[in-house]
Amino acid sequence: MQIAVIGSGEEWIAQAEEVGRLLGERGCVVVCGGLGEVMEAAARGAKSAGGTTIGILPGESPNEANPWIDYRVATGTGHARNLAVAASCEAAVAVGGKWGTLAEVAFARILGRPVVVLGPGPGAEGEGVEHAATPAEAVQLALDLAERR
Amino acid sequence: MQIAVIGSGEEWIAQAEEVGRLLGERGCVVVCGGLGEVMEAAARGAKSAGGTTIGILPGESPNEANPWIDYRVATGTGHARNLAVAASCEAAVAVGGKWGTLAEVAFARILGRPVVVLGPGPGAEGEGVEHAATPAEAVQLALDLAERR
Amino acid sequence: MQIAVIGSGEEWIAQAEEVGRLLGERGCVVVCGGLGEVMEAAARGAKSAGGTTIGILPGESPNEANPWIDYRVATGTGHARNLAVAASCEAAVAVGGKWGTLAEVAFARILGRPVVVLGPGPGAEGEGVEHAATPAEAVQLALDLAERR
Amino acid sequence: MQIAVIGSGEEWIAQAEEVGRLLGERGCVVVCGGLGEVMEAAARGAKSAGGTTIGILPGESPNEANPWIDYRVATGTGHARNLAVAASCEAAVAVGGKWGTLAEVAFARILGRPVVVLGPGPGAEGEGVEHAATPAEAVQLALDLAERR
Repeated sequence: MQIAVIGSGEEWIAQAEEVGRLLGERGCVVVCGGLGEVMEAAARGAKSAGGTTIGILPGESPNEANPWIDYRVATGTGHARNLAVAASCEAAVAVGGKWGTLAEVAFARILGRPVVVLGPGPGAEGEGVEHAATPAEAVQLALDLAERR
Repeated sequence: MQIAVIGSGEEWIAQAEEVGRLLGERGCVVVCGGLGEVMEAAARGAKSAGGTTIGILPGESPNEANPWIDYRVATGTGHARNLAVAASCEAAVAVGGKWGTLAEVAFARILGRPVVVLGPGPGAEGEGVEHAATPAEAVQLALDLAERR
Repeated sequence: MQIAVIGSGEEWIAQAEEVGRLLGERGCVVVCGGLGEVMEAAARGAKSAGGTTIGILPGESPNEANPWIDYRVATGTGHARNLAVAASCEAAVAVGGKWGTLAEVAFARILGRPVVVLGPGPGAEGEGVEHAATPAEAVQLALDLAERR
Repeated sequence: MQIAVIGSGEEWIAQAEEVGRLLGERGCVVVCGGLGEVMEAAARGAKSAGGTTIGILPGESPNEANPWIDYRVATGTGHARNLAVAASCEAAVAVGGKWGTLAEVAFARILGRPVVVLGPGPGAEGEGVEHAATPAEAVQLALDLAERR
């Protein structure tokens, strides 16, 4: 099962890494934007648990990916890659995040993917957006919601 | 000056039409997603004031555009056309709206375009997102913010 | 009727300008990639005949457009804007061109738009790709093919 | 190393499968468009040799992928996914193919990726496009060219 970890913000790196680690432990493929901060932490966490990672990049070169990405998709379509991140998952966990994360949450909801927000989140509320207090709770909730789809 | 009108919801049609009309009167080119409801109302309003309209469509055919669109760009990239709507304006007015509008607000802010929200809006708050109580106030504020960029 | 002018190459500027001029005279809206060389020449030609031009840009800013573009759509999706150029026309005239033009011809044909090649062209042959010897012949053929669709 | 297999046409299925098999044997990750015919055959071939496959899909659902795809990226951007296929590889092998393949070859060359054509190919010739007579020759040539970049 492909689960996306989205978000941004240096202060969220530890939580993102823990989310990635737990997803890796559960056998999920972690999908992310492939670049730094939260994306890199989630991928590093997944790899620390023997998991697999996909980075969906905005640019035209796979070499942009952080070192924890196993499979690198360079979309070449800039911020439109946020649509691909949302479309490629069964559920998304948002860790921190601002406008870019908000676009991903919006696309996830347009496409019917459940979103679990850890922390205050990017500010998007509505049906299909749930909140969690810890990485463990976020991962469990995301997997439950993905299976119920 | 190209100003985007974004949003959705039948209950917002009258306000969207008024926003479009006022933008047309002020000599602005109205950019929108080219389809129905708020997009169509904004375009119709602009045309009623002798304005010009651009529709940026998700699909692969210009024929999808509503009848009030003068110039039709079929992006062929689905919801990624929301990025093009945001990138093609100097400022955006959001009238109603849900997840699709939220994606457009997010992209507008990533790209530094000011956004004026009329009504409760899609729920995105932050620097560069202002609120207005009436179509006239929204249009004036959008033009002021666009000029100050 | 929206007709695309695609292509590249300094040596094709005069012919592209003439194609644009003739399209403008015939009342067509000239769609192009909005940047330099053939794109700029076609737009300049259209404006010299009182025509209207749309530039579909790869980047995130309308300011990238050449000065002869009336309506500027910044797609933000890089080379994927070539799909939008092809999808937004009823027919395309290719003037010179290399790999970028080839992508546009390919997309035009996938979407059923006729293509008229002036000069040797980018090398794509097949059903729906016709050749013309002069700008006048190219424009006439493109309009005939667009009407027959 | 990620190598793309592009193309189309029922008559090319056996050759595409052999290309995929040889790439899998060589330890390459096979990148393709994730759908049927040549894409499916290449992925099946790669899996028969214990290889890994990535499908870069045009639609909004990972479920569109053929059963031989390990990692599924749903771009949601229609034919613009051809840009992502080209950008995500170090070299591409084209097996048969028509307009869609031509767009991928064009994007690969814009981005500096070498292309090896097996069979008559989609008709795109130029610097960086080489021809091969057999799947084995095509794979060897693609890997050589990818390494020389």
